[in-house]
Amino acid sequence: MLLLLNPLTYVEVVWNLGAALEYLSRMGCRRVLVQLPQGMTHASERFLSAVEDRSMEALLWGRPAYGACDVVDPEAAGADCLLHVGHLPFPWLTPERAVFYVPPTEVDVGAVADALADRRSVALGGPAGVLPWLPRVAGELRRRGVDAGICEGRGRARWPGLVLGCNFTSLLSCRGEPVVVSDGSFHALGLALLLGRPVVRVDPLGRAETVDPMPTLRRRYALIHGASGVRSWGVIVSDIPGQRREELASFLCRSIRDAGLRCWQVRVTEVTRAVDDLGLEALANTACPRVSIEDSPMHRIPILTPFETLQALRLAAGGRLSRKYVMDVMF
Amino acid sequence: MLLLLNPLTYVEVVWNLGAALEYLSRMGCRRVLVQLPQGMTHASERFLSAVEDRSMEALLWGRPAYGACDVVDPEAAGADCLLHVGHLPFPWLTPERAVFYVPPTEVDVGAVADALADRRSVALGGPAGVLPWLPRVAGELRRRGVDAGICEGRGRARWPGLVLGCNFTSLLSCRGEPVVVSDGSFHALGLALLLGRPVVRVDPLGRAETVDPMPTLRRRYALIHGASGVRSWGVIVSDIPGQRREELASFLCRSIRDAGLRCWQVRVTEVTRAVDDLGLEALANTACPRVSIEDSPMHRIPILTPFETLQALRLAAGGRLSRKYVMDVMF
Repeated sequence: MLLLLNPLTYVEVVWNLGAALEYLSRMGCRRVLVQLPQGMTHASERFLSAVEDRSMEALLWGRPAYGACDVVDPEAAGADCLLHVGHLPFPWLTPERAVFYVPPTEVDVGAVADALADRRSVALGGPAGVLPWLPRVAGELRRRGVDAGICEGRGRARWPGLVLGCNFTSLLSCRGEPVVVSDGSFHALGLALLLGRPVVRVDPLGRAETVDPMPTLRRRYALIHGASGVRSWGVIVSDIPGQRREELASFLCRSIRDAGLRCWQVRVTEVTRAVDDLGLEALANTACPRVSIEDSPMHRIPILTPFETLQALRLAAGGRLSRKYVMDVMF
Repeated sequence: MLLLLNPLTYVEVVWNLGAALEYLSRMGCRRVLVQLPQGMTHASERFLSAVEDRSMEALLWGRPAYGACDVVDPEAAGADCLLHVGHLPFPWLTPERAVFYVPPTEVDVGAVADALADRRSVALGGPAGVLPWLPRVAGELRRRGVDAGICEGRGRARWPGLVLGCNFTSLLSCRGEPVVVSDGSFHALGLALLLGRPVVRVDPLGRAETVDPMPTLRRRYALIHGASGVRSWGVIVSDIPGQRREELASFLCRSIRDAGLRCWQVRVTEVTRAVDDLGLEALANTACPRVSIEDSPMHRIPILTPFETLQALRLAAGGRLSRKYVMDVMF
């Protein structure tokens, strides 16, 4: 499957490594920077060797990519082209000479359909690697009398069925019960947090589980309570291109100051443990909301999402918490 | 003490925070990015507030600076000026609108002189913060009959008496026994590794210690031995401006390949634990050599300096290790 998003800017999406490399070669690339997603960096030699087998030089980006928001500029890293693995691109964030390759996740279509055969109506979605299989899963389900839909999302998730860590619109714009087909519960947890109720996940071998947002929500509200008593805040702005939200940061810092507290912007490349040692009591992180949620246990001070920060301010002002947890505030 | 390096490019070095802020203000700065050294980030509020008291907006860089090689470009971080704290600048690496402020380390001149009074001849040096006191320590020592010198270094350490983690030329260009005046043994350990023998350090309160390189050297040679048996290497290139050594990386990768092993360049911003998970068996790090030495215990695979990498290749080829440990290979 080969899909040209925009041939003029050489942006291409493929589910076939050979085609991706062929495209890089035809583009005249000489030094290719390889960027791999978390969980695939251990296989870097395979990709580096494959690039070299086509007589191009290969360089490796030394940090896992967390999404298509986290696409590195190859020129800044001393290369002339980028091979980004594992994510479907946001066209407005893609460097000119970049090719995206998404290794398909092997999905047992029959087993996944079996796991969902007792439902009346489902909306199917998952991360990029499972997308090629979803139409076949839907077909199997329909043969068994289940109304199965795969819908297009909005914004960053415009591919049919695509679910990101921060965007679940493809599942929510279908009727039917949302079902995440994925290895790992990261995507399903995001949706569960957004909906405030358990969500069904089926792994590629057809094993179903229910992902409950409550343990995570309890931890988040504990952090919100903790942060409601602090006096000095930092608002983190990341310089990862798709996570750089300066207006949101200005708004948050203004809100914090309006509440009579101190606030400064903190500029980072990555959100590392070093931010715990800045002498600030709590941090609002305007980069990926999932970074705040997944990495909180490694930090010594509260690191909140923008929504959680506004909740902490409301608490500090004697107000009540919202009954609904909002995954992200988009600006 | 106010010293203009080059008034045309607004590069200024001060041991006085008020003067540094005054200079930023006169430059017409509106948004000042504050960059603090390790060990001083907990006091960020003091610097952020001081900037704001002069009616400029303050932003904080979210990671400690490890030296004047690690100076951030304020524009890339959304500011128009930089206040870099804790290091003396390398003029060739300094952004246009940058002011360097070095908080003086309080030194008990009499106590330091007492600790060295039984020597015949010493060369005094230390990190930036102690420099204002060294002439007075030297004066005290001379009054007691000790021949005390403070010499200018070469390259990155051209300030009289300045010792960096990677440059000890100011001590070695003096006759007399080298003595490091500093809090912490980081600088003295570097010199001890370079000389292959113990080095005297005196802390600002006059407490002397001898810093022995042997425990560290034993660990380094163990890593060199471990890395001599691996088949796939990565060579790290950092994009921190003063630590970006592409030619050295190309030379190392070529040497590794000439030895019949596999090698790829790994591009990073910071050297984090993520580099352990790249599926490579050993890493040569062309960024600051002290990063490899100080951070090795946190990594699961050998991370070697350029010199150590060449030693591992020599071992792999059946050769012998050099009798001398070389701190850094400058290209």
